[in-house]
Amino acid sequence: MSEFSEWFHNILEEAEIIDTRYPIKGMHVWQPQGFKIRKYALKLLRELLDEDHEEVLFPLLIPEDELAKEAIHVKGFEEEVYWVTHGGLNQLNKKLALRPTSETAMYPMFNLWVRSHSDLPMKFYQIVNTFRYETKHTRPLIRVREITTFKEAHTIHSDSKGAQKQVERAIEIYSNFFDQLGIPYVVTRRPDWDKFPGADYTMAFDTLLPDGKTLQIGTVHNLGQTFAHTFDITYETPEGEHEHVYQTCYGLSDRMIASIIGIHGDSSGLSLPPSVAPYQVVIVPVLFKKGAKEVLDFCSQLKDKLEKGGIRVHHDDRDIRAGKKYYEWEMRGVPLRLEIGPRDIENNKMVALRRDTLEKETLDYSEETVINDLNNILAEITKNLKINAWNKFQDNIRPANTLEEARDILTNDKGIISFSWCGDESCGKEIEEFVRVDILGVFEESTDGTCIKCGAPSKTIALLAKTY
Amino acid sequence: MSEFSEWFHNILEEAEIIDTRYPIKGMHVWQPQGFKIRKYALKLLRELLDEDHEEVLFPLLIPEDELAKEAIHVKGFEEEVYWVTHGGLNQLNKKLALRPTSETAMYPMFNLWVRSHSDLPMKFYQIVNTFRYETKHTRPLIRVREITTFKEAHTIHSDSKGAQKQVERAIEIYSNFFDQLGIPYVVTRRPDWDKFPGADYTMAFDTLLPDGKTLQIGTVHNLGQTFAHTFDITYETPEGEHEHVYQTCYGLSDRMIASIIGIHGDSSGLSLPPSVAPYQVVIVPVLFKKGAKEVLDFCSQLKDKLEKGGIRVHHDDRDIRAGKKYYEWEMRGVPLRLEIGPRDIENNKMVALRRDTLEKETLDYSEETVINDLNNILAEITKNLKINAWNKFQDNIRPANTLEEARDILTNDKGIISFSWCGDESCGKEIEEFVRVDILGVFEESTDGTCIKCGAPSKTIALLAKTY
Repeated sequence: MSEFSEWFHNILEEAEIIDTRYPIKGMHVWQPQGFKIRKYALKLLRELLDEDHEEVLFPLLIPEDELAKEAIHVKGFEEEVYWVTHGGLNQLNKKLALRPTSETAMYPMFNLWVRSHSDLPMKFYQIVNTFRYETKHTRPLIRVREITTFKEAHTIHSDSKGAQKQVERAIEIYSNFFDQLGIPYVVTRRPDWDKFPGADYTMAFDTLLPDGKTLQIGTVHNLGQTFAHTFDITYETPEGEHEHVYQTCYGLSDRMIASIIGIHGDSSGLSLPPSVAPYQVVIVPVLFKKGAKEVLDFCSQLKDKLEKGGIRVHHDDRDIRAGKKYYEWEMRGVPLRLEIGPRDIENNKMVALRRDTLEKETLDYSEETVINDLNNILAEITKNLKINAWNKFQDNIRPANTLEEARDILTNDKGIISFSWCGDESCGKEIEEFVRVDILGVFEESTDGTCIKCGAPSKTIALLAKTY
Repeated sequence: MSEFSEWFHNILEEAEIIDTRYPIKGMHVWQPQGFKIRKYALKLLRELLDEDHEEVLFPLLIPEDELAKEAIHVKGFEEEVYWVTHGGLNQLNKKLALRPTSETAMYPMFNLWVRSHSDLPMKFYQIVNTFRYETKHTRPLIRVREITTFKEAHTIHSDSKGAQKQVERAIEIYSNFFDQLGIPYVVTRRPDWDKFPGADYTMAFDTLLPDGKTLQIGTVHNLGQTFAHTFDITYETPEGEHEHVYQTCYGLSDRMIASIIGIHGDSSGLSLPPSVAPYQVVIVPVLFKKGAKEVLDFCSQLKDKLEKGGIRVHHDDRDIRAGKKYYEWEMRGVPLRLEIGPRDIENNKMVALRRDTLEKETLDYSEETVINDLNNILAEITKNLKINAWNKFQDNIRPANTLEEARDILTNDKGIISFSWCGDESCGKEIEEFVRVDILGVFEESTDGTCIKCGAPSKTIALLAKTY
């Protein structure tokens, strides 16, 4: 197990995020602390999507014949689909699949829902559990058999341009989401041999975990008309013709939580962006024999005040050593800790420890401005987490001019390699074989260089990395 | 199909609550309008539970051996459990059940989580989908094979009294929840032959749908120590002894939405309590050639103002006949409709139609008080829906002194019969057989009468009804 892997497993356990002892491999329990982080992350996501998407909820089970309708699609999933074959003591007439993703659950209904050009575009999303019978090594939140948090959006458009624009819009939404969480990413166009089964093309978000491996944290697919033909989804044009629709879909998973934990965490444990922290502020009273009651009263009133001001706050008045409290709240990633003793109250001061920097400073306390002051610090923490994460991320994207150089960098420094590529699949596969990692995809079009493999004029800058 | 059944199916379709055309019997699609009602209902429920419960999320799948551990429990469910037998093309070594309920998913973990008396009580809940292979006739939201909205709470206590008190507390929480939705109910103690498999006893909430049949909308189970013994869930007492815990669990389902729809609806369609209405207020501009722009501007500004004031509001400025709009918003159950024309603006008036009474009145419009004024009307609507529903409900609970009388009432008037019962199972079963409906349960202890069957001094007042 790598050092990061060990850290990750330990912090999931110690901070009570996920219990991995559930008696099925790759299926885990969200504990209360983890559930709250997940809840606040989904709140941010819903705020972004609700602007122009409708939330829906489709059944978990998909009849075998619907799943099989789109041949390319089912081929991509057939080895990892769980099958329900029995109801009670009876064998079912038709096997039912646990959704691996919901195209084949939704699109037979879209066939019924879409009527006229005036219905379009339609944009739906749902947040559900999906299932993959993973045969590889499983890891909590990263490679699991029950994806407990699968946000999948599905959109329907009257023309190709509408679908193309929606791909751009989805990238914008996801960028905004990850920016709010301070998670750095690259967006690439996946090689054709690595696109979503049934898509025209796939755009993907990758971030980098501390062990130097990239993690795919979001995908956006332009489905073109493939599924529209398979499920005969048509609309009536203003001229009375019937045309097939164009579609996109895009998804996020539990990995959004894995990346929050893995990217911002450090040797003291979690370090949570305020937007998803179960507690944004913890108040620790500093007690001496004299004045203890005054301090506890002050802290308790401060807690009420902050809560009314919309800050998620906890007053830790347990009768245990302060050091134990400090250790625990740092480990749990509370962004801001306030320590308040009798002298502080006298002098209108508070001692604040920022979890992102682990530095202490003494703040002025004013009843009128305290909520605003703390919100400003929380905003600074958010900003600082993001800057640090992006700096580390960008330091780990390195150009390589030869395959040997790429291989050396990946051996010594890990991270992401950028290189010039002619774009041909045969070169791509040989590059992957030589450096023994995957091409993430095309980062941008560029005719400046020559292909790292064949030396022909290159068309693109692409990225290589060891992936999760 | 009964008249109510037909009405219910039609309104689900016309108001776009649930699409029942999904290609698996008993599994349905939540459409955007239905999803919103569900979302707001769950928001009320979470507010009540979050006071002293922690939300968690357990896996969907339960290994066969865990499900089978508690013999009475598995016997109650074995005929309706869906089984996953294959992953990809491989047969699984161990069959996996789709949870019919989560005792056997959670309690092996509670075995690990509970350590000391100081951990107790613990109170958890989750909102998930569960599955029952129903062989009876299915009905959307009422009898389904995928229960998409199963709120199940599970609590752990150090003594019997703690569990007993939690049963009372759960009844209080559910009463509060249904009161907010204006859904009337009776709470009874289910007969022993009808309790939850594995429980010491079961308390249940029943409401009455317009066809005179009762619908079980919530249950609260005192599990005693049955599961604690099966899953060996123990805690260390202050004296260092290891004792088995006491447990309760309690649940609500999609039926909460069925009862909102069925109980408040009328021949014009839905009539939604403001707390769960996707739109609480709809503004319909009344347009003439002259002054149309002013009216539209006014309505649009009013919409913004109400939205900022926390009211869910829609401005229906479509260029269609007002009558069509009125029909549609009444059918969709929007609690309050405002009609605003040029004369109204001049005179600082608005015409308001309350969905609950379908009566129009002219309101004074004042920029300063409009939000408050409308919130007051919305509160009145909530109150009135509840009063009407309870009146109808109570009119349909009738006492019977003889079995023949009970049978006649159930034939002519339907509804609920109250009767004196000695409490013996043999009498109970004979009563059920004679009147051909079920005993809901014991409503209250009472030694006033004599048993309707055997004539012995009775111990209880119990209820009889034709049930869903």
